Amino acid sequence: MMKKINDYIELHHEHFLEELFGLIRIPSISSLKENRAEMDRAAAYWKKILLDAGADEAEIFTTPGNPVVFGQKIIDPAKPTVLVYAHMDVMPVDPLEKWNSDPFEPVIRDGRIWARGANDDKGQSFIQLKAFEYMVRSNTLGCNVKFLIEGEEEIGSPNLELFCMEHKELLKTDIILVSDTSMIASDIPSITVGLRGLAYWQVEVTGPKRDLHSGLFGGAVANPLNELCKMIASITDTNHKVTVSGFYDDVKDVPSSERGMLAEAPFDESAYIISTGVKNVQGEKGYSTPERTGIRPSFDVCGIWGGYTGEGAKTILPSKAFAKISCRLVPDQDHLKIGQLFKDYFSSIASSAVSVEVTSLHGGPGYVCPIDLPAYRAAEAAYNEVFGRRPVPVRSGGSIPIISSFEQILGAKSILMGFGLESDAIHSPNENFSLKNFFNGIRTIIMFYNHFSLSHGE
Amino acid sequence: MMKKINDYIELHHEHFLEELFGLIRIPSISSLKENRAEMDRAAAYWKKILLDAGADEAEIFTTPGNPVVFGQKIIDPAKPTVLVYAHMDVMPVDPLEKWNSDPFEPVIRDGRIWARGANDDKGQSFIQLKAFEYMVRSNTLGCNVKFLIEGEEEIGSPNLELFCMEHKELLKTDIILVSDTSMIASDIPSITVGLRGLAYWQVEVTGPKRDLHSGLFGGAVANPLNELCKMIASITDTNHKVTVSGFYDDVKDVPSSERGMLAEAPFDESAYIISTGVKNVQGEKGYSTPERTGIRPSFDVCGIWGGYTGEGAKTILPSKAFAKISCRLVPDQDHLKIGQLFKDYFSSIASSAVSVEVTSLHGGPGYVCPIDLPAYRAAEAAYNEVFGRRPVPVRSGGSIPIISSFEQILGAKSILMGFGLESDAIHSPNENFSLKNFFNGIRTIIMFYNHFSLSHGE
Repeated sequence: MMKKINDYIELHHEHFLEELFGLIRIPSISSLKENRAEMDRAAAYWKKILLDAGADEAEIFTTPGNPVVFGQKIIDPAKPTVLVYAHMDVMPVDPLEKWNSDPFEPVIRDGRIWARGANDDKGQSFIQLKAFEYMVRSNTLGCNVKFLIEGEEEIGSPNLELFCMEHKELLKTDIILVSDTSMIASDIPSITVGLRGLAYWQVEVTGPKRDLHSGLFGGAVANPLNELCKMIASITDTNHKVTVSGFYDDVKDVPSSERGMLAEAPFDESAYIISTGVKNVQGEKGYSTPERTGIRPSFDVCGIWGGYTGEGAKTILPSKAFAKISCRLVPDQDHLKIGQLFKDYFSSIASSAVSVEVTSLHGGPGYVCPIDLPAYRAAEAAYNEVFGRRPVPVRSGGSIPIISSFEQILGAKSILMGFGLESDAIHSPNENFSLKNFFNGIRTIIMFYNHFSLSHGE
Repeated sequence: MMKKINDYIELHHEHFLEELFGLIRIPSISSLKENRAEMDRAAAYWKKILLDAGADEAEIFTTPGNPVVFGQKIIDPAKPTVLVYAHMDVMPVDPLEKWNSDPFEPVIRDGRIWARGANDDKGQSFIQLKAFEYMVRSNTLGCNVKFLIEGEEEIGSPNLELFCMEHKELLKTDIILVSDTSMIASDIPSITVGLRGLAYWQVEVTGPKRDLHSGLFGGAVANPLNELCKMIASITDTNHKVTVSGFYDDVKDVPSSERGMLAEAPFDESAYIISTGVKNVQGEKGYSTPERTGIRPSFDVCGIWGGYTGEGAKTILPSKAFAKISCRLVPDQDHLKIGQLFKDYFSSIASSAVSVEVTSLHGGPGYVCPIDLPAYRAAEAAYNEVFGRRPVPVRSGGSIPIISSFEQILGAKSILMGFGLESDAIHSPNENFSLKNFFNGIRTIIMFYNHFSLSHGE
């Protein structure tokens, strides 16, 4: 069986990449309104490749935002159904000067694809597409398959919940399959069983109504940059814990037995320090680095700006200061509640000399998948066959907010079979994806379908 | 005498403005390297108008930076000499969208000139030029006059000290006259007898070597934006005092008698709040608003940037954070010493997980002029004749670092006869300058020369 798969991959290897590169070349950056037309191109591309791969039908749905592509192959309504979820949008590419090659002109170097979306999620979604194609062409598909490809994942999937509610019957499924996460290491497969939630806001602080001369006014007028720094600084303490009252109310302590399992997953701190380039790791007191991203919430300023940022010295006391700030949340923390806590906090600590406005930009809940689920077991067996070892169940620090929504709306759990690595620089310059993982991913997904269909056929 | 002056102004009024507008139209922004050619145009313009106004000679000197223009009229080497200092460079104009008209195409509206440099210092320097022109043409000049026009005032005059040292004989003078400051109110003349010094740095904080995904790494890796905010926040306490050890060591307590005089100068807090648009005044505990800018040092973030600052939500943990920060200093505080204190402070408080680099961009000492100086008395009498009241001696919050250097190198005090208003929005969008102050300025400077020449002739 594995030989037939390998032969198929060998034979179609170049075409797989050519088709993927065509998708990557479309700069489908969802956070840039001016790239809206690129989303339509990406949707049309996906419709075509779903049909080419063997879908019976594929359709582009409009939403108030970017389009959604749906395609399916129903072999027998009595058989179980897998819904593949992926996204065709990508993150912005700035700072462009840090890229070693054009982010939208993929190149292969050192056995890796280099481009925006090489991994997240164009490369990984192609694993799903090509596994599906193989099963259709080899006539080995043992279940129904649906594809749901959205175009707003990187901006928080603002229209996908409503789409799911309106198309519950069309999307009806037994399990959801997603390739949008990382493995622990290139030889250690893992299945993501936990995802952090996200809350993301923009803060705007206004002091004087116009920029003032810092000499004539400095010392007598509240400076919104000074004030914003003070407010942000007060949010975490010297133990790197969040000080906002109520923030940890819904954070459940993970039992020491489970923390022990987490500690067994290989983690090389020196390699982590080298790969990130930090001088030291740093985080909440009392937790290890994997725990800090896996089972604990975080607080990060993602962007800040205000005043004079050009060359040289402009002596102004600026009118406005801005920050984009976010928290990663653990399951049970409600992003709306956390958002309100922060809004209240900023209002309560702001100097009476400035005004503060907090606007929510993005948010979603966390997720947990039980490891005794039959579909989880099928995934475990598939990895075992391709990688020669059982995958480690891990809790990732990242967020895919829609995964929780799927559970609520469609009543289905998601199996997160990701084939990326943390070093793939997703969301950063020089995003890349290993060809080895790409092809092993295709093999693993095909094996998953086999085990999944068998377990449901029993 | 005043009638003759008024007649001259009346007759040449339009030509004064046309010539000034020609200067304003040259975008001589010294902090933008790409505007370097504009500095040469401004220098050539100044050479021409000095000769047109009646200088015997005028010359453009090159420096390692922008050119310096020098012109003079020596009527008798035995007579006293006045050196007029002014600058032809201006501040940047961003944010451009906040201007009601093109910053480099001056317009007259509501009795005011609107443009970058309308006041600072193109408008005010023209007061000096036109007073000189009148005295030459009317044959009433009773002393020698020299003009020193530089092109780097707004970036801290980095090359003027050396120029003064190399041309001490050429610049030899009894007194220096400067129009680059503000009056208390349009009907209350004032002479600036104190200036704050300035220290200005850029701080760069580096965490990871590249931008990271805030989900995968958030909580386990030091975020340079979080860290920068914490460091900046720690520099001032809840009483708005600077906490950096040694910062106040050389700040002399101003005697209560002098604080009393300062308190007698009219100050309307409601008008100040309306004019700046702040919700409340705010500053160092124990001091009034004029004291906070006049006799106390300040700490301001002039600019801050880092991470994602575009539209929407990009979930990154950035590699770098930057801030431009400055302190206004009172006389006796040494800007180099203060700079070192801050460098040491940042090094001492930085997290071991990030690196911090502090670069000095700008700096200069403060200045005090005694009010019993004969030249001060001459200025006082001149204001009295034109404005009908004695000017108030004030300490300004602004800095003209070169004024202290002049004292050290040329051994001469400066008389700061400024005709702007704090509401003129210098360094901000919609800079403007009142025509009434412009013409009253010319009248006052002419009267100053009369009193000054008489006092020295006695």
